[in-house]
Amino acid sequence: MTVQRTPAPELVVESWFNTATPLTLAGLRGRIVLLHTFQMLCPGCVAHALPQAEKIHRMFAKTDLRVIDLHTVFEHHAAMTAVSLKAFIHEYRLTFPIGIDQPAREGDVPVSMATYGFRGTPSTVLIDRAGFIRHQGFGQEDDLSLGARIGSLLAEMSAGNQPEVPDSNGRDSGACLPR
Amino acid sequence: MTVQRTPAPELVVESWFNTATPLTLAGLRGRIVLLHTFQMLCPGCVAHALPQAEKIHRMFAKTDLRVIDLHTVFEHHAAMTAVSLKAFIHEYRLTFPIGIDQPAREGDVPVSMATYGFRGTPSTVLIDRAGFIRHQGFGQEDDLSLGARIGSLLAEMSAGNQPEVPDSNGRDSGACLPR
Amino acid sequence: MTVQRTPAPELVVESWFNTATPLTLAGLRGRIVLLHTFQMLCPGCVAHALPQAEKIHRMFAKTDLRVIDLHTVFEHHAAMTAVSLKAFIHEYRLTFPIGIDQPAREGDVPVSMATYGFRGTPSTVLIDRAGFIRHQGFGQEDDLSLGARIGSLLAEMSAGNQPEVPDSNGRDSGACLPR
Amino acid sequence: MTVQRTPAPELVVESWFNTATPLTLAGLRGRIVLLHTFQMLCPGCVAHALPQAEKIHRMFAKTDLRVIDLHTVFEHHAAMTAVSLKAFIHEYRLTFPIGIDQPAREGDVPVSMATYGFRGTPSTVLIDRAGFIRHQGFGQEDDLSLGARIGSLLAEMSAGNQPEVPDSNGRDSGACLPR
Repeated sequence: MTVQRTPAPELVVESWFNTATPLTLAGLRGRIVLLHTFQMLCPGCVAHALPQAEKIHRMFAKTDLRVIDLHTVFEHHAAMTAVSLKAFIHEYRLTFPIGIDQPAREGDVPVSMATYGFRGTPSTVLIDRAGFIRHQGFGQEDDLSLGARIGSLLAEMSAGNQPEVPDSNGRDSGACLPR
Repeated sequence: MTVQRTPAPELVVESWFNTATPLTLAGLRGRIVLLHTFQMLCPGCVAHALPQAEKIHRMFAKTDLRVIDLHTVFEHHAAMTAVSLKAFIHEYRLTFPIGIDQPAREGDVPVSMATYGFRGTPSTVLIDRAGFIRHQGFGQEDDLSLGARIGSLLAEMSAGNQPEVPDSNGRDSGACLPR
Repeated sequence: MTVQRTPAPELVVESWFNTATPLTLAGLRGRIVLLHTFQMLCPGCVAHALPQAEKIHRMFAKTDLRVIDLHTVFEHHAAMTAVSLKAFIHEYRLTFPIGIDQPAREGDVPVSMATYGFRGTPSTVLIDRAGFIRHQGFGQEDDLSLGARIGSLLAEMSAGNQPEVPDSNGRDSGACLPR
Repeated sequence: MTVQRTPAPELVVESWFNTATPLTLAGLRGRIVLLHTFQMLCPGCVAHALPQAEKIHRMFAKTDLRVIDLHTVFEHHAAMTAVSLKAFIHEYRLTFPIGIDQPAREGDVPVSMATYGFRGTPSTVLIDRAGFIRHQGFGQEDDLSLGARIGSLLAEMSAGNQPEVPDSNGRDSGACLPR
């Protein structure tokens, strides 16, 4: 099996939240990147994709995975301004880096969204340590399969060491113990 | 980092459902095994752990992961008989192999449960292709972290090929598309 | 509009759990009765209907509504014995009165289930203070519409007083307060 | 028991969505009104309260209950403009009448919110046919208890007729039928 690997195009971002300095994929080479896109008024992003991104950001904080989100506004531009996004990030307590995808000179679709060919929001991309796209999907990502993709990339390490997959803080609600 | 790896003790099973021939871990060497335990009257098993096991069984059917469940009855023995378990498996439409853990000669805790030192139900064990325990947990396992553990083991392949992590059949309910 | 009201047939019960003395609809005349049926191996009963019944039992404890469940076994009789049901009630922490529907002399469908013409499990019946059936349904009952039916019956009081609809212990998780 | 009933103060609204003509409580006298408040960037409103309001709006469409929402912006005013709200209503497919609470001349809390003394968002008020407040709550309202309050008010009819509580379109997923 020959695996086709496409280099991940660099992000074109207007401004950033939750990061002291602008981020680039080039600067993140050597790390795994979960690149995620959303719009603050996209119901599926708010209900599923953003909580999932926040959870991954926290769960894999001690690994070399980095979560980045892009606000790829392709409709209702006047409704999803930087001012509104800032309040949204505050109210939803999102803590991972979020960039505003650069608006296009012409047309509604912003630059990074067009470059990657995202169909809409949410979209999810996994980029390996060498900067290649290993997964690109549209819509709600299942936790089990996305987890498996992440675990698989984490295991691709130089020395054959076991990746630090975190414990799930096993909830024992409803579990049964011998008396 | 020296990784400690404990060989997975062989299962001691009274009888099997959903498999034509009895299963042994020895016979599954070379495959990854998700060994899971439950009791049919354990609420957390019914609500979370068994649906998760069924989902993993289906999602990773084309990989070399095998899901096995043990019915480890340590209380209410007269209430959770083989006859009741058979009807339970039918009604809940469980399709993966399920073994009844061998009752102990003395005491309530069955043989395999005692050997593995399970605290209660549900318990989850991941066994690698060489037969070593790579994860053992009690209670509800988070989909993201369990998925990551599975993906990590799937990636440990001889030829460096990418494991066949399945697509999540991306649900685009609530997703947003350009008009 | 002429409202058709059918008298609720008396229950025929083999034995009871969670009540010191056997219950009869005749003895509950003057109270509203939520009569509910289940089988302990019916997935929809376990996941939805029984937690809903327990919640109603607790929420309306100070009103004159009484919740009664019948274990109407019409399949897998050897799997759902009184011994298994007792353990089930214990493990799922059900606290409302539960009766075992009297097995039929012939056939699989027990006596009360046949009398009421229940299609399967779960089934739900609302009986007013005068002993008439005001609602009979099969399958999962929506909380809002079942709540409305209960509220409507509770409001049918002699003196025009407002029924004691309990507070919902308003969860303010995710709510927003002025700073 | 003497029931205290407070007249519901008239709404002060800047502009309306989803209604051809402005609404007033005076104009709705004779109907039951579920008055609800939210902010479009309030996570608890988006996840729970607005879907609940939409569900009630649809479920009780044939009764004389009317659902009205007020957008009571008390923070992030520049982020939750009328333009943003319009896109929000479109994307979340809300179909009931929504008014923008009149901003105050001084301070952050808008006029109707101040008049009613709402603590934050979401808030819920039930107003009876005579224009009196029968319930006022803050935070997530439980479906069962809110349903009971609605059913109770619906039952307060002149002629003793049974209110048209709708069927719940009983989902029989997971239900069990005799073979």
